[in-house]
Amino acid sequence: MIEPTVSGITAAAGFHATGIASGIKQAGLDLALIVSDRPASAAGLFTLNRVRAAPVIISLEHLASSKGFARGITISSGCANACTGEPGLAAAREMAIDTAHLIRCPVEQVLVASTGVIGLIPDTTKIRLGIALANRSLSQSGHRAAAKAIMTTDPWPKEAAVRISTPAGAFHIGGMAKGSGMIEPRMATMLAFITTDAQIDSVQLRRALVDAVDDTFNAITVDGECSTNDSVFALAGGVSEIQVDSSLYPTFVNALRQVCLELALAIVRGGEGATKLIRVRTIGAQSVYDARQVARTIANSPLVKTALNGGDPNWGRLLAAAGRARVPFKPSQAVIKIGPAVLYSNDRPFSDREPVAAEHLQGNEVDIEIDLGTGGNHRATIYTCDLSTDYVKINADYRT
Amino acid sequence: MIEPTVSGITAAAGFHATGIASGIKQAGLDLALIVSDRPASAAGLFTLNRVRAAPVIISLEHLASSKGFARGITISSGCANACTGEPGLAAAREMAIDTAHLIRCPVEQVLVASTGVIGLIPDTTKIRLGIALANRSLSQSGHRAAAKAIMTTDPWPKEAAVRISTPAGAFHIGGMAKGSGMIEPRMATMLAFITTDAQIDSVQLRRALVDAVDDTFNAITVDGECSTNDSVFALAGGVSEIQVDSSLYPTFVNALRQVCLELALAIVRGGEGATKLIRVRTIGAQSVYDARQVARTIANSPLVKTALNGGDPNWGRLLAAAGRARVPFKPSQAVIKIGPAVLYSNDRPFSDREPVAAEHLQGNEVDIEIDLGTGGNHRATIYTCDLSTDYVKINADYRT
Repeated sequence: MIEPTVSGITAAAGFHATGIASGIKQAGLDLALIVSDRPASAAGLFTLNRVRAAPVIISLEHLASSKGFARGITISSGCANACTGEPGLAAAREMAIDTAHLIRCPVEQVLVASTGVIGLIPDTTKIRLGIALANRSLSQSGHRAAAKAIMTTDPWPKEAAVRISTPAGAFHIGGMAKGSGMIEPRMATMLAFITTDAQIDSVQLRRALVDAVDDTFNAITVDGECSTNDSVFALAGGVSEIQVDSSLYPTFVNALRQVCLELALAIVRGGEGATKLIRVRTIGAQSVYDARQVARTIANSPLVKTALNGGDPNWGRLLAAAGRARVPFKPSQAVIKIGPAVLYSNDRPFSDREPVAAEHLQGNEVDIEIDLGTGGNHRATIYTCDLSTDYVKINADYRT
Repeated sequence: MIEPTVSGITAAAGFHATGIASGIKQAGLDLALIVSDRPASAAGLFTLNRVRAAPVIISLEHLASSKGFARGITISSGCANACTGEPGLAAAREMAIDTAHLIRCPVEQVLVASTGVIGLIPDTTKIRLGIALANRSLSQSGHRAAAKAIMTTDPWPKEAAVRISTPAGAFHIGGMAKGSGMIEPRMATMLAFITTDAQIDSVQLRRALVDAVDDTFNAITVDGECSTNDSVFALAGGVSEIQVDSSLYPTFVNALRQVCLELALAIVRGGEGATKLIRVRTIGAQSVYDARQVARTIANSPLVKTALNGGDPNWGRLLAAAGRARVPFKPSQAVIKIGPAVLYSNDRPFSDREPVAAEHLQGNEVDIEIDLGTGGNHRATIYTCDLSTDYVKINADYRT
């Protein structure tokens, strides 16, 4: 049985966390530390952007050289440490070295992540002092501070946790994530961190993570931008002594997916300037790829996103976006629904139903469905948010 | 010699035009008519969106059945006549029939185009009366009214014309176009109309149009949206008696390209909410395709467009956008320039030069260059505009 529970990254036994202010940001928490009491199985998925931030490169190196074990993750916000060349790599390495020294483990058992402005080299003195401070304040109740410390333009911290009961006892999966612009992860995500006290080796943990991420972090978009720092990390410490064997594996993946989905939807809800969570569902497609392409094209369409921001059930923009997705379908056989209202079907608009759709758009959760009518039965859902004047304001003034 | 001249769609001898108010829009001109004194060679390029508006379908039919001749083009604005099924096709056909009757030509020699809200069936009575009114007011000085009548959210009319002198005499190419949202044409454009008094058959005219469109209408983007109604039409009436033979063809294409570029840039300058014209140039690519992909990805990046709106020389967003363009290059070998300032080179940021770039961003024309440093010497330019809060406001409220 999988049930939600409070807390986040420290919901799993054997994990401690904290978030502190190191001075990288002008104000507020900006450095988080997650530590596992024992070497945990570790897995990571990273951005497909050709430009990879220094901490992504270092974490990949460490995951390889540690053979899939990690004791800690150090995360800084305010400076992405991307496009920073050798000095950036040195700074990311130093973050790991400083952490390893304090929590007493081999350097390759420390993973690192950063988020913030691209092109700035991080201040390693501030980070070193910050890590020392963080190490002294680790606790089981530190999950909230950690979730706050990884935020940039996020309007609120994002945490999720579940408790999984098995005949042999219970274990937990918990996590935290941050958004909230430059969001269209590809086989990875923005920063997300997940811990569990189940026992699972790093190869199986990675497989489970890939499975869980596909319909969750990889199914969201805020602005179609795949970042240089996208990373999702999972650590399994094994303190519960519950072994994820082949019979428990499907439950484990389901629970992991539930945590990932909750965090992914929180990222979309907290998207820059977002006022609505929008589920775009394609059905009746000839393949899952086609279904996703159409849902993704609609979800990234600025004209769709602005119409939804204005509460306008402008279904014509939905069909126009689907039409440019380079997916085979006949527009005359498509059906478009906003909320409960079918607005286009059999090549005919139903303007009389627009008031029903307009009412649905008043809420902060919006459902859009397009049936491609190809005779195929493949489907996909992409989660996105609306595009508001606040998105423009936030990003026009981000560095000032 | 190619030289700019005043006037637009009637710059070429033998063409008359007008724009009138038919009542489709609540106020303002909304119906344009272009008539050639004699059957003109005709060519058209249309949207690649799977959803094709009724007038696109009818114009394609007519171009095929008339064997490449046309006497007139009727254009309505306010209602796109897209996603309107059989009643929409009947309305588009009726537009052509009514026009053919009045200007006395076979119906297949009339082309039609519409722009505006998707999903509304046009009011054929208003259009019929409008065409009758337009037919009575055709003139050589009607080019400006015609250019105004095809506008939707365009802030100003878009016209261009050139005069080409040859040893045998002079001929003209003139045109008009409209934007200004849902702009990322693919092998076509938003509505654009071009006339010439040169003599050229429809096959050669189409070839010249394809050549000219590639670096002009197909190199612009406002919001990455490929519309259901994109069309560019060219009519060659031949009144100048100058024959475009193989020796004159390159000059003809150059002149045509010049007119297309002027109209295309006018569309970008007048993009919804735009405050700046942005030239994104990729050099040092391994293929023209790669160069275009990178320039297009940057030009469509909401984070780049909002940063430029805010006057922020945030080169990190440029490199991050290039990195997700799925084009092979090494970020460490790339060079990024905003205006005259190199901001990133040899894997190193040059923050001290940001003030120079920031000053360049104060102007209303912005130059961005990314050298991919692959050793290849292919290049491409894409023209776009910034993303402002006005774009969001215009499109959140478009139908209200």
